[in-house]
Amino acid sequence: MMLSEQRLLPSDPTVRGIAESLYAGIAALPIVSPHGHCNPRWFADDVQFTDPTELLIKPDHYLLRLFYSQGIELARLGRGVNANEDNRAIWQLFAEHYPSFEGTPSKIWLDHAMQKVLLIEEPLTAENADRIYNDICRRLRENDYSARKLFERFGIEVLATTEGALDGLQYHDRIAQSDWKGRVITTYRPDQVTDPDTPDFSEKLARFGAMTGEDTANWKGYLNAHRKRREEFRRRGATATDHSHPNANTADLGKPACQHLLDRILVGTATTEDKEAFRAQVLTEMAGMSREDGMVMQLHCGVRRNHNSALFSEFGPDIGGDMPRRAEFVNALAPLLNRHGNDPNLRLVLFTLDESTYSRELAPLAGHWPCLRIGPPWWFHDSPEGMRRYFASVIETAGFANLAGFNDDTRAFFSIPARHDMWRRELASFLARLVTEGRLSEAAAHGIAADLAYHAAKRVYGLTTP
Amino acid sequence: MMLSEQRLLPSDPTVRGIAESLYAGIAALPIVSPHGHCNPRWFADDVQFTDPTELLIKPDHYLLRLFYSQGIELARLGRGVNANEDNRAIWQLFAEHYPSFEGTPSKIWLDHAMQKVLLIEEPLTAENADRIYNDICRRLRENDYSARKLFERFGIEVLATTEGALDGLQYHDRIAQSDWKGRVITTYRPDQVTDPDTPDFSEKLARFGAMTGEDTANWKGYLNAHRKRREEFRRRGATATDHSHPNANTADLGKPACQHLLDRILVGTATTEDKEAFRAQVLTEMAGMSREDGMVMQLHCGVRRNHNSALFSEFGPDIGGDMPRRAEFVNALAPLLNRHGNDPNLRLVLFTLDESTYSRELAPLAGHWPCLRIGPPWWFHDSPEGMRRYFASVIETAGFANLAGFNDDTRAFFSIPARHDMWRRELASFLARLVTEGRLSEAAAHGIAADLAYHAAKRVYGLTTP
Amino acid sequence: MMLSEQRLLPSDPTVRGIAESLYAGIAALPIVSPHGHCNPRWFADDVQFTDPTELLIKPDHYLLRLFYSQGIELARLGRGVNANEDNRAIWQLFAEHYPSFEGTPSKIWLDHAMQKVLLIEEPLTAENADRIYNDICRRLRENDYSARKLFERFGIEVLATTEGALDGLQYHDRIAQSDWKGRVITTYRPDQVTDPDTPDFSEKLARFGAMTGEDTANWKGYLNAHRKRREEFRRRGATATDHSHPNANTADLGKPACQHLLDRILVGTATTEDKEAFRAQVLTEMAGMSREDGMVMQLHCGVRRNHNSALFSEFGPDIGGDMPRRAEFVNALAPLLNRHGNDPNLRLVLFTLDESTYSRELAPLAGHWPCLRIGPPWWFHDSPEGMRRYFASVIETAGFANLAGFNDDTRAFFSIPARHDMWRRELASFLARLVTEGRLSEAAAHGIAADLAYHAAKRVYGLTTP
Repeated sequence: MMLSEQRLLPSDPTVRGIAESLYAGIAALPIVSPHGHCNPRWFADDVQFTDPTELLIKPDHYLLRLFYSQGIELARLGRGVNANEDNRAIWQLFAEHYPSFEGTPSKIWLDHAMQKVLLIEEPLTAENADRIYNDICRRLRENDYSARKLFERFGIEVLATTEGALDGLQYHDRIAQSDWKGRVITTYRPDQVTDPDTPDFSEKLARFGAMTGEDTANWKGYLNAHRKRREEFRRRGATATDHSHPNANTADLGKPACQHLLDRILVGTATTEDKEAFRAQVLTEMAGMSREDGMVMQLHCGVRRNHNSALFSEFGPDIGGDMPRRAEFVNALAPLLNRHGNDPNLRLVLFTLDESTYSRELAPLAGHWPCLRIGPPWWFHDSPEGMRRYFASVIETAGFANLAGFNDDTRAFFSIPARHDMWRRELASFLARLVTEGRLSEAAAHGIAADLAYHAAKRVYGLTTP
Repeated sequence: MMLSEQRLLPSDPTVRGIAESLYAGIAALPIVSPHGHCNPRWFADDVQFTDPTELLIKPDHYLLRLFYSQGIELARLGRGVNANEDNRAIWQLFAEHYPSFEGTPSKIWLDHAMQKVLLIEEPLTAENADRIYNDICRRLRENDYSARKLFERFGIEVLATTEGALDGLQYHDRIAQSDWKGRVITTYRPDQVTDPDTPDFSEKLARFGAMTGEDTANWKGYLNAHRKRREEFRRRGATATDHSHPNANTADLGKPACQHLLDRILVGTATTEDKEAFRAQVLTEMAGMSREDGMVMQLHCGVRRNHNSALFSEFGPDIGGDMPRRAEFVNALAPLLNRHGNDPNLRLVLFTLDESTYSRELAPLAGHWPCLRIGPPWWFHDSPEGMRRYFASVIETAGFANLAGFNDDTRAFFSIPARHDMWRRELASFLARLVTEGRLSEAAAHGIAADLAYHAAKRVYGLTTP
Repeated sequence: MMLSEQRLLPSDPTVRGIAESLYAGIAALPIVSPHGHCNPRWFADDVQFTDPTELLIKPDHYLLRLFYSQGIELARLGRGVNANEDNRAIWQLFAEHYPSFEGTPSKIWLDHAMQKVLLIEEPLTAENADRIYNDICRRLRENDYSARKLFERFGIEVLATTEGALDGLQYHDRIAQSDWKGRVITTYRPDQVTDPDTPDFSEKLARFGAMTGEDTANWKGYLNAHRKRREEFRRRGATATDHSHPNANTADLGKPACQHLLDRILVGTATTEDKEAFRAQVLTEMAGMSREDGMVMQLHCGVRRNHNSALFSEFGPDIGGDMPRRAEFVNALAPLLNRHGNDPNLRLVLFTLDESTYSRELAPLAGHWPCLRIGPPWWFHDSPEGMRRYFASVIETAGFANLAGFNDDTRAFFSIPARHDMWRRELASFLARLVTEGRLSEAAAHGIAADLAYHAAKRVYGLTTP
């Protein structure tokens, strides 16, 4: 359907009126995207995207998963060794199944990308799919649609990408060396060298040592290797690290115990508990380093990756087979917090896929510990209903000031405006309800709206001074 | 109170208007009831119900439990060896305590049954209880009130009952042999011969063997016995199996390990873990058989049955003493799903009593695995607020297409229209909210409403070709 | 902001109209406060409060925690050995950070206390903080602002305080001996002598024995000591006990096993499991004593106290560092319930900080066991959104009749009217929604509103006959 100007705003005329006014005040604010997965090469090379299917379908795990749930094999969507290579046919297939996305945020993001970014003036259907495919192809070839032009047109003030500890940072270097003024920064994501369950972990640690000139078989050297890489990332603008762990467990062990864990991991005698303890200790070390170097620490935990073994074998990760797990933060984070958490200069942003932790754990923790901020609704919960539950569950205990604002967390570049817009509309709607119920003044609501749409992300992620 | 025509629809005039239109389009659709616990004898014998208390009170565990919570002993409600045998007095007691049911779905179901089915034209009170008792008695004696006539008047297109693996299926045979055209089918529920904690389990396995001519002490024979009984059930129209397990654990063991488990169970040396592993393995086997024979598999798990030991000793099961448990699906179902879950011809419908699993586990799982569908809100959550949380929690991640439609899951025959009507009203209300907020077109909403009110249940349960 | 007369009521005009009518019927009902933490000395001495900071800021753990989360050290708020002693400066600091409380219930409580109790006619800001400080100081010195006068002005019919098993009850005696008619009663909270993890537990048991003339090293003597102290508390008006446990675990052990546990605890060889078993057994014993003496038992469980070790060392407990834990009731309470739960004269009121237990455990349990009642939303959930989730999650399964009404659970005396008022407004709003949706008659809604605002607390806590 064609997007309405009032989309997502509440139906009640009184609330809607206030929501419209609040939204009007923030709709055009610049986009601050402190966490995401765009490819920095796009901006280094100022790439021109070419094909609707390559751009919008094949890389989108939200789409792949829901298609797959409806019995459509991933090869038909252009993935894997036996992939359908006819992108036009894939687009047609997508259009035929587009109604399966009704009610999902993907539908809103895609409609937004097609209507507001690609300027398609009719809703996608099986009938007009081919024509719209042509229209998008034509549009993408226009000069305005290069990555940098879109970055500017989207009003992006800063965009963080995510690179691994072993990744090169050449694209960020090239962006910095170019005459383009767009601010694209990296984020330090060291999972490959912190999670002993990573394939070829020992070899990766060896490479990590080679990159940094440190002996990563030695606990002290291993930590120094992190310090040096963090420094490299900071030199490419990074203000944050990101950690994807199976759970939030942290530990606070003595150095000899840490060395023993590392030894057992390297010789291959580590137990499951050893590996768990290693990951847990590393999180605490990362918090300590954040106190040293000021990098904001993000924790995205509680996912069972690649739940579907056969699909993982055939297609690899990120095809929609990751599943949330029950989460626990209060006991899990106690070692880290008691070691580092009273330092008001530390920033640790927590994300969850288990909404029962919003009111039970995240809001109480963030409403006490000075280092903590609550990240926005993540992944499956980055949606209208997800945001409503989030606001309704965390604000009363954590206040607005302990939120981290929004991040889009996406590799789908064309969806970035849609995602920030959804957050701003839901934020305006929630605040409007508080105003209507006499729980907040309209003046205060305007200030909070601007803060959570824009300023909070800059403040929490230390992005104010480029 | 007398039921209003707009009951359950949202208050906001704009949303209500759309909800009314959506509801009008589905209110009169036939009832498809693919899972429930009506007694097939009613339809075999075309029974005439006689007494309001026997019909509406004594068999209803929802009523018994809330009465009991208010200090009213079950004997006073006509249950147990010292039961009050004066049904008229029980009805009076019920009427006096009827206000305790305010705010519960039971109140809406009962008001509906009395007003819409039994055509009582005033709300039940302590004062008019006796007169209404007489009125209902009189009404029940009318020709229109035989089981078959009501089935037709309710607009039931198909009604599934549930029988155990050791149960006879004679009532279904008699229905088939009669000249009545109503479609009443059975469902294969083998818990008695799959759960080693069942009393006299070995003896039951022996009977299971005798019924099927298989050696159920042998793993292969045991599985064949299931295959033969499933075939018998299918010949009585069954399209589905149902499994009530304490949790969702599944396993994927080799045949020797399965035989060892069975051996230990039969000789009485099985540990708690052995029994758990047996149940877990059986679920995976059932999924495998569903791939063979096309029967839809339903999993109702996460209940601690008979929480009140004294009451269970005196009154047996199903008197309102069952309690939900915390549920976990992601890890628990991984063995079954990785063995069978990529087969798009398999259908596994999941139900939960732990609402925190809606957004955290069921929607992400069903939004990926092609075999999975999410069952409607179950038991305590088959209610207005329960449905609202369900829709708001599952749709955004699973889409509408991964839902199984509605099932009433009831033994309370007179409540069937009320339950489907509640679902239809809540469905219309949820969709109307999406329309009003610009998240769904009204045309699409009409299609989804019809699908989830009627077509989805037929499609998911394979009921389209009788 | 200045409080509006319609605050917290729903925006929709139809629902609001009904909510206003329901609220009008209960707004002026007397306050029954069956559980809280006010200091009985205030009423024994009819104290005159003197300082806004001492009164409203320094004792309020809700304020301390949110301030601390924003990087403001507790010493700056007047706590600890290096405390800022300038109350006026603390008040100024508070006013500057007051916007951090937007969206929290604390803001509503404080605005209410300032506007409705202290009659301040403008919202607190950094600019007017000093003048308002003076105004409050002046007001507090007025005769009307003594503790007893406020008690009367607040319309408090009965106020329960909470004392430990080893505490003196002299203030209650002095209130009783005075000519003041206000009803201030105590509550038996024996955690110090039931939790073996209490510091100096053996010494405390010895004092407990000395107070009661019982040998508390002997299991029978230990139980008798409780019986005698309960009797002492009852003589000071107590109708209830209260138990703060880390979880809801209960046990039903034989006497020898109980003696063994006690022995190991007293000689210091008790394991973690022993201590857990002891706490679990004590809860069951307390339920048994409640059957004997009629005292209502309250269980507040599921908190990890003093999560921040450094802050606890420096400032002690109750400074905002307590964190909720995941809760489980169904299995945990089974031993107690199966021993005592079928006695309709027993009253056990359950509270939770884990909202996922509302619909999954508390409502199903309370909708069956005659002894159980569900306490109101507790602590972090004593808030508008918390109450909405509570009503929407428990009523459909437990009915209204299994709720315990409201308790404010506060040591912040000036906030008591605000808290009861918030409950009454939310109650009216929830009921109005049911009425508008045709789920409840307006007449029934008026009755339920009055019950849950006033009568239920008296009935459940046995407060009807002073």
